[in-house]
Amino acid sequence: MTTGNEGKVTLVSAGPGDLDLLTLKAVKVLASADVVLLDDLANPEIVTLAPQARVIRVGKRGGCRSTPQAFIERLMQRYARRGLHVVRVKGGDALLFGRAGEELAALRNAGVTVEIVNGVSSAFAAAAGLGVSLTHRDHCQGVIFVTAHLRDHSEPDWQALAATGMTLAIYMGMSRIESLCATLAGTLPTTTPAAVVQWAGSANERRVAGTLGTIAAHASAAGLGSPAIILVGNAIAESASFGMHPHDKEIEAQRLSA
Amino acid sequence: MTTGNEGKVTLVSAGPGDLDLLTLKAVKVLASADVVLLDDLANPEIVTLAPQARVIRVGKRGGCRSTPQAFIERLMQRYARRGLHVVRVKGGDALLFGRAGEELAALRNAGVTVEIVNGVSSAFAAAAGLGVSLTHRDHCQGVIFVTAHLRDHSEPDWQALAATGMTLAIYMGMSRIESLCATLAGTLPTTTPAAVVQWAGSANERRVAGTLGTIAAHASAAGLGSPAIILVGNAIAESASFGMHPHDKEIEAQRLSA
Repeated sequence: MTTGNEGKVTLVSAGPGDLDLLTLKAVKVLASADVVLLDDLANPEIVTLAPQARVIRVGKRGGCRSTPQAFIERLMQRYARRGLHVVRVKGGDALLFGRAGEELAALRNAGVTVEIVNGVSSAFAAAAGLGVSLTHRDHCQGVIFVTAHLRDHSEPDWQALAATGMTLAIYMGMSRIESLCATLAGTLPTTTPAAVVQWAGSANERRVAGTLGTIAAHASAAGLGSPAIILVGNAIAESASFGMHPHDKEIEAQRLSA
Repeated sequence: MTTGNEGKVTLVSAGPGDLDLLTLKAVKVLASADVVLLDDLANPEIVTLAPQARVIRVGKRGGCRSTPQAFIERLMQRYARRGLHVVRVKGGDALLFGRAGEELAALRNAGVTVEIVNGVSSAFAAAAGLGVSLTHRDHCQGVIFVTAHLRDHSEPDWQALAATGMTLAIYMGMSRIESLCATLAGTLPTTTPAAVVQWAGSANERRVAGTLGTIAAHASAAGLGSPAIILVGNAIAESASFGMHPHDKEIEAQRLSA
């Protein structure tokens, strides 16, 4: 859908941080980038893979409006119309909680060709760090990826989500971890396994494990903040006593005494 | 946790099919594999990345017991105990619906070191193929990854899942797509956007789009079967009229007349 030039935009998923978790396709696309628009949550070292590209940082962490969305969209259009290959780098997988829907719509309405390169979303990296599967056929039928940070500052219906019995992978929930765990505990036992993984899948990864009743305090004691994934559900405990932090022992003790 | 030798098992996520969607880390791990245990759902060409490894196919598609789980677990232990690097390749991301939890537990109980390499899960590739985001802040707070294929042959509580208002990414649902869409339509409008993507993220990818009321018939008419992802939710329609199949026009027409 280009209109007379070769410009295009590729949305590239930067994965959780570690450059080794980029896909081969992402690396190829970056190598051919003329312009890179870099998200705050992506590892800044990713630009070393696009040495010839002009790099523009368009961070927008935690709802702050350091770079307005409309400006980012106009910037992509402008460069693509000049015939350039614009690579828009987003942390995790670009198609989850990244406002990719809005960017795709804006670019297409402007007649700009868009391609998408998938990646590893942070919750998968969090589970890998903990050494657990997000699902376990003994415990649940699936996993819910939910953001605690809603546009209208309302809350997801935590109790309805908890009632599904699925693993919960909560993005952007650290600022309200105490209240959301308390709300979930209205439906789930306070002994339900839970974990927090900050900077999952990166060199700075830090994690604590516990239960719905203890995880907020553990995370606070360990000084964990955003960006982090909160995982809740029985599947999370399956292997949690292995190769992890001291807090993990708690889960194992609870499992053994259950 | 090795006991006197250097053997280990790495669970490697093969991604949705296209080898370009492997992570750099997966490629490195495969290059150092002595033994590769290959899942049915992984692209068989992945073995070209482990040219020196002994390859064992341990397919187990759709609940058939062609290779019993316990046998796979014993096989991994045996080779790891010989000091070999065993790479267990699973389609998509190994930590979603892959029985990784059971394999991790069995290996750890046996004292075998296990590592995990993440990848791209099929639902992300399905969304990329459709050119849509799995979430859209105007439409939903998240996405539910659910399997229709349960251990006890029961069904997930489709109506409760639908009531959350989240995007549904349904794995292993093709054998019952008609009944599950009908059940979802008990809670969601039949005009809710829906799509089916078979072999998402591979060279054989095929897709149809429509609504909850029409998608089962579209998929059947197009001859789409397993393995496929069924996506349901308003976020799915955001860009669905772009670069897709004739069926897609239907969604756009409905959006315009809505």
